Amino acid sequence: MKVNGRRYRTIWLEGRDGGVVRIIDQRVLPHRFELLDLRTAEDIRKAIKDMYVRGAGLIGAAAAYGMYLAAREAGEASFDGDLANAAENLKNTRPTASNLAWAVNAMLASLLGQGGTRAQKIEKARLAAEAIADGDAESCRNIGLYGLELIKAAAGKKKNGAVHILTHCNAGWLAFVDYGSALSPVYAAFDAGIPVHVWVDETRPRNQGAALTAWELGGHGVPHDLIPDNAGGHLMQHGMVDLVITGADRVTRRGDAANKIGTYLKALAAKENGVPFYIALPSATFDFTMRDGTREIPIEERDPAEVRCMTGKTADGRIETVQICPDSTPARNWGFDVTPARYITGLITDRGIVEASEQGILKRYPEHAHE
Amino acid sequence: MKVNGRRYRTIWLEGRDGGVVRIIDQRVLPHRFELLDLRTAEDIRKAIKDMYVRGAGLIGAAAAYGMYLAAREAGEASFDGDLANAAENLKNTRPTASNLAWAVNAMLASLLGQGGTRAQKIEKARLAAEAIADGDAESCRNIGLYGLELIKAAAGKKKNGAVHILTHCNAGWLAFVDYGSALSPVYAAFDAGIPVHVWVDETRPRNQGAALTAWELGGHGVPHDLIPDNAGGHLMQHGMVDLVITGADRVTRRGDAANKIGTYLKALAAKENGVPFYIALPSATFDFTMRDGTREIPIEERDPAEVRCMTGKTADGRIETVQICPDSTPARNWGFDVTPARYITGLITDRGIVEASEQGILKRYPEHAHE
Repeated sequence: MKVNGRRYRTIWLEGRDGGVVRIIDQRVLPHRFELLDLRTAEDIRKAIKDMYVRGAGLIGAAAAYGMYLAAREAGEASFDGDLANAAENLKNTRPTASNLAWAVNAMLASLLGQGGTRAQKIEKARLAAEAIADGDAESCRNIGLYGLELIKAAAGKKKNGAVHILTHCNAGWLAFVDYGSALSPVYAAFDAGIPVHVWVDETRPRNQGAALTAWELGGHGVPHDLIPDNAGGHLMQHGMVDLVITGADRVTRRGDAANKIGTYLKALAAKENGVPFYIALPSATFDFTMRDGTREIPIEERDPAEVRCMTGKTADGRIETVQICPDSTPARNWGFDVTPARYITGLITDRGIVEASEQGILKRYPEHAHE
Repeated sequence: MKVNGRRYRTIWLEGRDGGVVRIIDQRVLPHRFELLDLRTAEDIRKAIKDMYVRGAGLIGAAAAYGMYLAAREAGEASFDGDLANAAENLKNTRPTASNLAWAVNAMLASLLGQGGTRAQKIEKARLAAEAIADGDAESCRNIGLYGLELIKAAAGKKKNGAVHILTHCNAGWLAFVDYGSALSPVYAAFDAGIPVHVWVDETRPRNQGAALTAWELGGHGVPHDLIPDNAGGHLMQHGMVDLVITGADRVTRRGDAANKIGTYLKALAAKENGVPFYIALPSATFDFTMRDGTREIPIEERDPAEVRCMTGKTADGRIETVQICPDSTPARNWGFDVTPARYITGLITDRGIVEASEQGILKRYPEHAHE
């Protein structure tokens, strides 16, 4: 997508020998647009763990590039062992996202137990990482095309006015290599001239909606309003939301979806008020080994400081972090919740719109029927 | 309740001639505890409008004291007209809260069309305002005693561990003259030695949970954890909430309850997960003239800056306001939502636990049956 007229991805290889992974540093958005160079697998591990990069697809792509850097760092004799260690380190950063393990495992599958010289293996790792990044972008582009049809249909049902779409967290191009999952249909609709308007949940505690989704939508010119996470129920109760579309970090074979904490509350309100609720995801976000998402998907608990404090820009342009509670207040910080499949109207995937049920999913993913 | 060992109310008369209304300035909590003197009806109007004081009962008491100050300012000949004007000004500050109009109307009823000297009328206004403030505190004390029984029952059902109570916004003593509504049962239970633990919703956009509820509970020694507003659904899904208790700003004769935006989402999650959901309120919060809360209760829309910015304390102790979204991002800011009666397990009132239905409410409030 474009930033100030120039085309960007969220992550790419840079440098004469391709030994540098360059990212958009998402910690300083929306107040500053800065690129950052990651040069080692450890840099990548830290960037995922501390959320310089975040979002299902982008974490996957970053981990793939991390495995490529690990291949560059691996010893000739200890190549496979070094890569296996790097894979463990990367996978341990964020427990909930499917794409992370999926990408690391895909890299391992193409690299372990292979012949060839060290240089050949490194080149193979580079190509595999690039393929994962390209695949992520292409999946997201397709999600946009399928989701566009839903928005078109919603627009057709309205006599006048924009299609109001509520989204939670950031599942835009910043959460992937390009295009995004939940926002890809929005961009496609906007580009097709369909009037759309997005309600942007601020998404506490880390404010990915306020900081990233609002920045993305503003940059592309899509009409939107920032709202507190608390507002969506009221809006749906009063007919002010036509569609909810969010991303996901992991979706089980039955269609239960882990996504940013608070998604489940919006799904309940959508169900209660007859608002269609869609989850948009690339195929890599499915975890076909899991069935019951509420019981099986591990939910990451993060630093309480993310709840107790908030970072932003002062009136005179300084970036400050402020504490919003008393010094002695303890806090808890679960990163995700699980929306059971029964609340999900459909899954917008790169293979089309899929019913959120084991039957519906396996019809489109028959290769996983016997896992 | 006590602050640093000294007993306080949230508002009281001060000064040799009782011409000063002193409040705890809730804009600077939890980082500073400061008292502020209000000397005119206009001071009071501004304090309500700009939320130096907030919360259903406290707004009512402040408005009553505002009418007392208005009586002191009123002309001898124009007394009734001046008071009627002051009443309008005060009522226009916050459209959603019932207690505000209730208190102003109660003051008017006891002051308009009365005989006596100007001094006698002013003294009457003082007594009427003090009676409203005392009545609010007494109502809240009684809410605590009735609610205590619910918490006792919940504790009896648990084999071990604390009773986990989730609350939204601040309906503690800071929201009333004393004791609080939703938190009054919690304090009563804690003081009775029942193990309780409170999940404190931070309550965006103004963070009354993080700033006020956490401060209150910490001051009283009640175990609690601050959570983002997004977390409650996840907690209820996993059996980590035994009871939800919130306050209300207006409750219709059918039991629909307007409360801080986001309450409705918690009510949906409670219903879905079989968690009892109670609204605690003094009788003055009922609006017997309204039936369908979702259609009839006016919902205040406030300054978008409350959503776009956040105030807190920096690591070195300065109070700063930071903006969390891009400069150009528009925001919307509805202050309340309405939870329909069907999601409410019961109403904890100063007349006992009342079923959230017209029949249930009128059984306890028969004097309003024919309105």
